[in-house]
Amino acid sequence: MLPQWVIEKKRDGETLSDKEIRFFMEGFSRGEIPDYQMAALAMAICLQEMDFEETSSLTKAMLESGDVLDVGQREGLKVDKHSTGGIGDKTSLVLAPLAAACGLTVPMISGRGLGITGGTLDKLEAIPGFRTDLSEVELREAIDRCGCVITGATANLAPADKKLYALRDVTGTVPSIPLITASILSKKLAAGLDALVLDVKWGKGSFMKTQDKAMALAEILTKTCRSLGTPATALLTAMNQPLGRTAGNALEVIEIIDVMRGEGPEDLVELILVLGEHMLTQGKVATGEDATDLLRQKLQSGEAFERFRSMVEAQGGDLRVIDAPKTLPTADLIEPVTAPTSGFIAKVDAEIIGRACVALGAGRKAASDSIDPAVGISAIGKVGEPVNQGDMTALIHANDQEALDLVLPWIQDSFLISHDPVESPPLISSAMEG
Amino acid sequence: MLPQWVIEKKRDGETLSDKEIRFFMEGFSRGEIPDYQMAALAMAICLQEMDFEETSSLTKAMLESGDVLDVGQREGLKVDKHSTGGIGDKTSLVLAPLAAACGLTVPMISGRGLGITGGTLDKLEAIPGFRTDLSEVELREAIDRCGCVITGATANLAPADKKLYALRDVTGTVPSIPLITASILSKKLAAGLDALVLDVKWGKGSFMKTQDKAMALAEILTKTCRSLGTPATALLTAMNQPLGRTAGNALEVIEIIDVMRGEGPEDLVELILVLGEHMLTQGKVATGEDATDLLRQKLQSGEAFERFRSMVEAQGGDLRVIDAPKTLPTADLIEPVTAPTSGFIAKVDAEIIGRACVALGAGRKAASDSIDPAVGISAIGKVGEPVNQGDMTALIHANDQEALDLVLPWIQDSFLISHDPVESPPLISSAMEG
Repeated sequence: MLPQWVIEKKRDGETLSDKEIRFFMEGFSRGEIPDYQMAALAMAICLQEMDFEETSSLTKAMLESGDVLDVGQREGLKVDKHSTGGIGDKTSLVLAPLAAACGLTVPMISGRGLGITGGTLDKLEAIPGFRTDLSEVELREAIDRCGCVITGATANLAPADKKLYALRDVTGTVPSIPLITASILSKKLAAGLDALVLDVKWGKGSFMKTQDKAMALAEILTKTCRSLGTPATALLTAMNQPLGRTAGNALEVIEIIDVMRGEGPEDLVELILVLGEHMLTQGKVATGEDATDLLRQKLQSGEAFERFRSMVEAQGGDLRVIDAPKTLPTADLIEPVTAPTSGFIAKVDAEIIGRACVALGAGRKAASDSIDPAVGISAIGKVGEPVNQGDMTALIHANDQEALDLVLPWIQDSFLISHDPVESPPLISSAMEG
Repeated sequence: MLPQWVIEKKRDGETLSDKEIRFFMEGFSRGEIPDYQMAALAMAICLQEMDFEETSSLTKAMLESGDVLDVGQREGLKVDKHSTGGIGDKTSLVLAPLAAACGLTVPMISGRGLGITGGTLDKLEAIPGFRTDLSEVELREAIDRCGCVITGATANLAPADKKLYALRDVTGTVPSIPLITASILSKKLAAGLDALVLDVKWGKGSFMKTQDKAMALAEILTKTCRSLGTPATALLTAMNQPLGRTAGNALEVIEIIDVMRGEGPEDLVELILVLGEHMLTQGKVATGEDATDLLRQKLQSGEAFERFRSMVEAQGGDLRVIDAPKTLPTADLIEPVTAPTSGFIAKVDAEIIGRACVALGAGRKAASDSIDPAVGISAIGKVGEPVNQGDMTALIHANDQEALDLVLPWIQDSFLISHDPVESPPLISSAMEG
């Protein structure tokens, strides 16, 4: 078998066999098949797609390119949550300690933001000292200590995914359902999970622009996950406006501390409770209202926050900033954006907010860029809220006058004010089991 | 501009601008854009195609990646012929000296065989000493001496094509009309031509399997060539059975010497005369029957052969084998294939003959393979010819018993004998001007 035969077959729209996919991904993983052949195959997959069996074979081949994490014997089932990415989506930071406080084991292998969507690891690194590069030994120690961990993939977890992900980013082969599926699941399943809850975003601020496309991704994700022996639930959630009221790394850490102190914005809390309910269901701890009640209680009692503090400590983070979030890095320039007219907020464009965050330095233009933890946008108004002319609809945090001047009109334009009342749009459209 | 933006645009089926194509090809040519980005773009072009303007921009960018050959002031216009490749297609070896004998200048930059189709350079290298790697100085000297030359592209003629061609071969991105067009024309036009005649093959033994596909390629080739300031004529010619009666390097050299001595198979002579007529028309030497008469006269008088001898000498070839073609390399094992029944030859499968030649060692399985000049197939029967049971329909020349045993049944199966008379199929279907 030659690599180009596999590429030609996919180019011509044919179905690849498990053997062909395994041959190619093993060769790529070992460095025997060069990047240019992988890039050509990835583009052929982008344009000719892959069916469910092919996607499952690809995921399995990438998963088996490395080790599967062994966190030892534990009482709670290992359940993780994964989001396909959005603006202001910070649920992972709460869900890992919250689900652990409810009795689950959460070995959360997370990624960084790229494009306009934020990354869990970048957010946590706003906490001085917080390490996201734990070794397998350190990872197991953190799990033993607090039942949860949020860290980057170690070198030998799905190494084929690391190589392919970097290549896809520079070869225009990111938007492909089979490639996205294999990337997400090979990385997540390498943590040796018992079950996975997926938050598949749709809308302006996410990768899937329509509900239909998100549904298609959710279906293949849950089906593939199940085919590899791990049950999965997928929620379809709206990402037209940012989630919560903040976007930017330190600002989002402050917001999740609010949530764990029993406060925080309604939509963010709602999504955490629904995702948490599915995690507890999959983890056989509780279902339905029992699950929601348990989650609420762990938030109200401060147990979730305690678990979070313990995780931050286990991962080297400075607990003083957790106890006094105002001491997190702050920006020099803080500029309000105000409503030009009275009425109701009809739209907050998450895509523009995301782009503005990147322009301010909260995200990366290229993979090698560094992140400014302090910058971003807070106090973001929500769709449906009434405003009077001159009311603040958002607060820009910048460390650079030029960037501030650049994004100020964007943020102004990202808000649409209507004369007539506007209903708050539903956040969660449906759930499916795999 | 980032390379991935260009790739993404083509992936999404959009039209690339001249500026974008130039940016990408210049970057690739200079080594600033890596192979993996070029491979992804090539696959996107394969699947999303390119329109005429894009193809023209791509050709121009590849042409301008290097120098354009300057052969100095010459009386005859510079006219070349290019074939898209077939089995037993050896017309170039005659046409370069023949057109030169008629007064044209023919700076023919040729390639090697790959896949089942033969290569002009490989055929000429069957002549001991013949050099196909002339420097620009040597190339000009040969032109000055005999009005023609057949050599490989020097390092600085369309270097982007050399890089891309090697990459396409291993990334499944060969069959793409815009990529084929840019490859052919950038290389040919780098010779600084006044006009080009194209022989676009269709049928089993060629790249384009149907007349329709060959027509589409011929159209874009002539249109692109004209858009870059060089008039072109394209002929559509059949390639279901091999051209002439030989396939294999030394065997084909013997056959073209026959033609230049006023003999040779009818179909081969017919194609040479028609292609030659178009070269003389484009070169403003003669048209129609005048052109054909002039060509016939230069063949009959021995002037074309004298010009060929002079070219072989200028390129370092051993003239003794030209004067005694039987002294060209010969194979150890010579095995006839015979007609299993009496009747008329209804089919000779050029694709099978081509595969057999590669298996015997006359072609390459991989670009790094070496070629055996002696092996191949001769005395190939032609469609329409009557045969009696036991008559020889082909003669296999092999240097390896195993290879001979392998291809013998293939060659037998490549012939179809019909009870009823069969007409010889037309060779040339149409011509178009660009």
